[in-house]
Amino acid sequence: MTMGPIQKKVHINVDLGEGYGNYRIGEDDQLIPMIDHANVACGFHAGDPLIMQQTVEACKQHNIAVGAHPGLPDIQGFGRREMRLSSDELTSMVRYQVGALKGFLDAAGVPLHHVKPHGVLYGMMYRDKEVCRAVYEGVPKGTPVFGLAGTYHEEVAEALGLPFVAELYGDVKYNADKTLVIDRKKKAWTPDQTKKHISSQIESSSVIAVTGEEIELPVGDHEVSLCCHSDSPGAVQIVTAARQIVNEFNKKQGFV
Amino acid sequence: MTMGPIQKKVHINVDLGEGYGNYRIGEDDQLIPMIDHANVACGFHAGDPLIMQQTVEACKQHNIAVGAHPGLPDIQGFGRREMRLSSDELTSMVRYQVGALKGFLDAAGVPLHHVKPHGVLYGMMYRDKEVCRAVYEGVPKGTPVFGLAGTYHEEVAEALGLPFVAELYGDVKYNADKTLVIDRKKKAWTPDQTKKHISSQIESSSVIAVTGEEIELPVGDHEVSLCCHSDSPGAVQIVTAARQIVNEFNKKQGFV
Amino acid sequence: MTMGPIQKKVHINVDLGEGYGNYRIGEDDQLIPMIDHANVACGFHAGDPLIMQQTVEACKQHNIAVGAHPGLPDIQGFGRREMRLSSDELTSMVRYQVGALKGFLDAAGVPLHHVKPHGVLYGMMYRDKEVCRAVYEGVPKGTPVFGLAGTYHEEVAEALGLPFVAELYGDVKYNADKTLVIDRKKKAWTPDQTKKHISSQIESSSVIAVTGEEIELPVGDHEVSLCCHSDSPGAVQIVTAARQIVNEFNKKQGFV
Amino acid sequence: MTMGPIQKKVHINVDLGEGYGNYRIGEDDQLIPMIDHANVACGFHAGDPLIMQQTVEACKQHNIAVGAHPGLPDIQGFGRREMRLSSDELTSMVRYQVGALKGFLDAAGVPLHHVKPHGVLYGMMYRDKEVCRAVYEGVPKGTPVFGLAGTYHEEVAEALGLPFVAELYGDVKYNADKTLVIDRKKKAWTPDQTKKHISSQIESSSVIAVTGEEIELPVGDHEVSLCCHSDSPGAVQIVTAARQIVNEFNKKQGFV
Repeated sequence: MTMGPIQKKVHINVDLGEGYGNYRIGEDDQLIPMIDHANVACGFHAGDPLIMQQTVEACKQHNIAVGAHPGLPDIQGFGRREMRLSSDELTSMVRYQVGALKGFLDAAGVPLHHVKPHGVLYGMMYRDKEVCRAVYEGVPKGTPVFGLAGTYHEEVAEALGLPFVAELYGDVKYNADKTLVIDRKKKAWTPDQTKKHISSQIESSSVIAVTGEEIELPVGDHEVSLCCHSDSPGAVQIVTAARQIVNEFNKKQGFV
Repeated sequence: MTMGPIQKKVHINVDLGEGYGNYRIGEDDQLIPMIDHANVACGFHAGDPLIMQQTVEACKQHNIAVGAHPGLPDIQGFGRREMRLSSDELTSMVRYQVGALKGFLDAAGVPLHHVKPHGVLYGMMYRDKEVCRAVYEGVPKGTPVFGLAGTYHEEVAEALGLPFVAELYGDVKYNADKTLVIDRKKKAWTPDQTKKHISSQIESSSVIAVTGEEIELPVGDHEVSLCCHSDSPGAVQIVTAARQIVNEFNKKQGFV
Repeated sequence: MTMGPIQKKVHINVDLGEGYGNYRIGEDDQLIPMIDHANVACGFHAGDPLIMQQTVEACKQHNIAVGAHPGLPDIQGFGRREMRLSSDELTSMVRYQVGALKGFLDAAGVPLHHVKPHGVLYGMMYRDKEVCRAVYEGVPKGTPVFGLAGTYHEEVAEALGLPFVAELYGDVKYNADKTLVIDRKKKAWTPDQTKKHISSQIESSSVIAVTGEEIELPVGDHEVSLCCHSDSPGAVQIVTAARQIVNEFNKKQGFV
Repeated sequence: MTMGPIQKKVHINVDLGEGYGNYRIGEDDQLIPMIDHANVACGFHAGDPLIMQQTVEACKQHNIAVGAHPGLPDIQGFGRREMRLSSDELTSMVRYQVGALKGFLDAAGVPLHHVKPHGVLYGMMYRDKEVCRAVYEGVPKGTPVFGLAGTYHEEVAEALGLPFVAELYGDVKYNADKTLVIDRKKKAWTPDQTKKHISSQIESSSVIAVTGEEIELPVGDHEVSLCCHSDSPGAVQIVTAARQIVNEFNKKQGFV
């Protein structure tokens, strides 16, 4: 199976502002200059008002597009422990978090670029259509959502009229069904592993799943953003590697 | 000392949506039809996303003006335990909460009417000018703030160019310095006590302080809103009494 | 199918101290004098240190046996939203909560009588043996646990050497598999419904499930405690009715 | 002014287990083998059940005495933002946290060695006698408390019959009134600064305050424990330096 290279310019997105109080995760200062899209934690799985304010300011300085990164209400579990919420709770929880981030964006004169749900919520959404619908109902009309092509993410976004940006994952493995292998704590990737993992995805629109088979990544003609995690060990090296690969690809394909 | 009656139409504001999860405080359903201005809790001292969403919907149905009611980050203390936060924390905390409420207002197509800080934060602001400034820095430009005339509330609002609405209190006593006597839990007022307390304020722009002396309430020509608490024992009776007094006053003065 | 009456004296247990900060659920003051066993919330799904301290004192005054009522870490969801925690998290979470309650019991000179997990955690335990084991690993050795006979509750308690007390439910319906029909918010029961529901259980060791069939309640020769919920609408009436039925039964059977 | 060397063997205590969920502060694994007394965070300002369980296990393996380190209920502020709580709240909050830690100690068969309040609470206690009394009321009878000699810490401990251990501070400066200069985030100390700061204290029972004057540290014949912070930048180097100085001192003085 060969699908050929990705058809659109590839961007890079990273989760930012995932500290809490005195705690820090992620070398945000080093990462921000290398990325295109920031997913800013909104205080439910990580982040607090002061960190959000500082993160939005830093993104503004580096002219990075800022999106909301809403998560489950569970800082202790970093939004990676599944919780069963009602649809109303999910919708309102997203509205709350996106609104909170907009408070900082409005004060800084920066537009809301996108919404990308965090952690296990992201996974619950591609496993359960109703969860996906409830989350997307909380996204302001017309705001792009980041998700996995070929899953409910794409299907529900289309049904609700939300622009869809297809994500690739630089430091996460895939299951055979095109979903992700999510851990509570990120494991280390070498820059070389990352480069190979990314190259395969953007050059051929496919990837080797953890089960060993090659799977298609049906990004079609959607906008594309490659996600790297700021809380992965060696995140700066991973994003540096990703940036190089992506720049070479975009240049080779003539994507400006 | 007699200052004469209030010079503007008197409105009534009540704190709403101050439950949390399965917990409820306040007979919101009975209060909403009787009031003009709702101060909606934003999840830090009370309220959660689902309650905020439902409260905004209920206010919309009854055509009540909706304001944000940001508080200290302390649900256990109901925002009535003083906490020492930095100015940056205060500003960002207000931006976060007001933004979160705007998420629901935007979804419902309802404008943000005002911002009124909650509980001990309100008191910290009239006792400490820097706290007041830091909180008001978090209010979106041009949004009216509710506060106590003759205190830093008014002075700082003016300095920052925020429209100021003068509050009277229907079920709270005053200190001789025009500030309020705040308790962690509200004590019971009879409708009669309330009526007398309110009448004195709106008829003469003055009130008897807990120390026994009469104090002036320098509302001047500001817009005026009378606050009653939804978590007071007998709140429905108190607001019913307040509504009657206020309606009679507005009619008598020719305020439509 | 007729199993005959319960073979041991029937006690009554109620969840207590399920307020939080200024919030209250349950008429604890009225309920305490009527019950035998208190399940005291430990601060994770409800309860806070001050409420726990006051609840332990009140139980001591009325000579009620006090047990710990640990729940999922989710006050907003009142411990009724399923969360997927690791076994280590479950064990440590129970140790933490039971230890916290013991802090108050030790100060008051009251022994820990039992442990009864709260809400959806209780249900997760009869559906998932590993969850049940992980929770019971957190219970101090030799401390009785309250649970449903014929489910993993009983099986795992036996395997770990924890004394087992069989529960009956006065205001909750049963599924055909002997498990409970749990709602996020309790629905109203009339005292008559309650009486009938309880009488059937204690007179015949069986009950009509929501599916209409009669199911056996295999309490065997375990100690027995009948649970009524303090957050049910009309809880005082329900517990009053339960007390009357249970007293009559115990007297008739000669259980002192 | 020269008071001469400390009269008792000097120990070293460090705050441990101050992470939360996926967040970590402090190189606990490297610090534990070098210290005598661990102050384990109890989940209010830092720490969670799983971290507490793991920290107690690690201390047990290295045979370190374990104390409770209760703090204000404010993880976002790391227990370093002053909060005004009632005396009842303070007492019950300490009972809760110490009890929770005892849950893990009991399971591990490790005794509770001491109680040392955390952060701004520690400072509130030497500034306000009633706060000090309320906190110490929550300490199990007979359990030693760690505090500052010559302040309310010592006076109230004596009044309540709690054994008192006098603390010295290896990486915190003193005010002229023998209290500490506390920051929300710790600043960097070099090992040399630390050594000089410690040597002066243990050799002469005095220290140079931030105001430049030499102040006496009236430790008398109390047990002595020197505190170093695990969240200070370079904490491992600081504790290594402290350990060397303290070992030399103890040896020189013949304290085994």
